Formats: sequence, structure tokens, C-alpha cells
Amino acid sequence: MKGLHIIADLYNCQKGDLLVSSEKLRALCVKTCQDAGLTVLGDHFYQFDGVDGTQDGGATGAVVLAESHLAIHTWPERDGATLDVYVCNYTSDNTGKAETVYADLIKALKPGDVLVERVMRGRDLPLKRRAA
Amino acid sequence: MKGLHIIADLYNCQKGDLLVSSEKLRALCVKTCQDAGLTVLGDHFYQFDGVDGTQDGGATGAVVLAESHLAIHTWPERDGATLDVYVCNYTSDNTGKAETVYADLIKALKPGDVLVERVMRGRDLPLKRRAA
Repeated sequence: MKGLHIIADLYNCQKGDLLVSSEKLRALCVKTCQDAGLTVLGDHFYQFDGVDGTQDGGATGAVVLAESHLAIHTWPERDGATLDVYVCNYTSDNTGKAETVYADLIKALKPGDVLVERVMRGRDLPLKRRAA
Repeated sequence: MKGLHIIADLYNCQKGDLLVSSEKLRALCVKTCQDAGLTVLGDHFYQFDGVDGTQDGGATGAVVLAESHLAIHTWPERDGATLDVYVCNYTSDNTGKAETVYADLIKALKPGDVLVERVMRGRDLPLKRRAA
């Protein structure tokens, strides 16, 4: 169950077109995971409506990975997004792949300000005991 | 972008049947979100194969919410699961709904041990400046 979970809040992203299109955002997220060598099992993305014709709607979605998940939600009115990249180490250490996905998404979205936290999930608890 | 993200690693869950069925897990997660008053936009769940006939396969999935997301990954060999419940406060304070979802899933999965962390996402940064 061990693995790195990168939790990031992005502000003032320069690539605003990616924040208002669930299709573009989906394509970016899926490709970024695949390029990092992760296994995409599926995804679900959703496009929000805009507000009164004055503000484009945001997008939200998740990519389900064999190694856990990526989730992203955008707030175009703040040029912002919250991003989660969680990649577990089931068969090998995937920490580097999580960092690659995160770095590639930062490069694509170009936030001016980022709050990021790294949480190590899981602990080395013993395997459950089974009846003999 | 503000909102509560509950990050939990669950061990020694008594309800092992939920950990090895993506269908049961999906139904539980979707219903728990709906019962808490959250808006489910879609989901994707996946069933892993077992190992050599000696261990049932785990399940993994994400529920995409209007208010952000729920993600869960199970490790039956540890009777374990990692759980994320992130609910933003776009139109109202949804902190209580996030706690309700978390409490209901704990009740359903019955973990013996839990590591839980609560992260407040987002900050009150000013809205982006637009050209006049």
C-alpha cells in the first residue's frame, strides 16, 4: 500500500485553455500518465457549464491507474487547479513516475504559484494472518 | 478551491468481501456520496485479477463529484485500502459532507487500524486580474 501521493494546488496557470476543456485536460492527463510508464485503466472527466456567459466553466476528472490515481479539478475564475497524483509501489518503486507526471503537468499548465505537499501513503504493516 | 481532503489508509478491514469486488465497492462508494448529498458526475472502477488462485484480486476506482472526488484502492492481502475524500466548498461549506462520507465508509469497511490525515486544500488567493 506504500506510495507517494503528491497533493498540489495550482494558481495563476498560464495555460487557461486547458482549464476550461475537459477533453483537452483528459487527453493531457492520460498521455502524461502513459508517457511516465503508468498503466491507465480508465478515466472519467466532466465539463462544467460557464457562468452567465462571463466565465468559462471548469473541468474535473480522474484517471484510474493500476498504480492508483490522478485527479484534477479546475477553477478557471482563479486560473487554478487542484491536482492529486498518487502512485503506489505494488510491484516496484514508482516514486519517480509520480514525480515525472507531476513535473510534466506543471510544465503543461504553467502555474505562477503552487502549494504542494508530499504524503507517503501506507506503512509496512504485517500481512494479515490467515487461519491455518 | 478551498475544501477538506481526508486522506486515510485503512488496515485490517473486517468487510473483506468489499475489498475484492469492484462492483460492490463501486455501489458502496456511489451510494455513500449520494446519501451525503454530494453530486455524482460519474465513476470508473476496475477489478484486478487474483494471484495464482491463492489470493483474491483487489479493486480500484474513483468517483468524480461536482464537489471534487472520492478515490479508493484496496489491498486484500492486507485487508487494506487507501481512501481519499476531497470535497470543495465551491457554493457552500461541504466539510460536513466529506466527514459523513468518510464516517460511513469506515462503518462499512470496519478497519481495525486507520491512519488518517486532513488537508485543507486551496487558499483565499485573490481572483485573477483580467485585462480591462
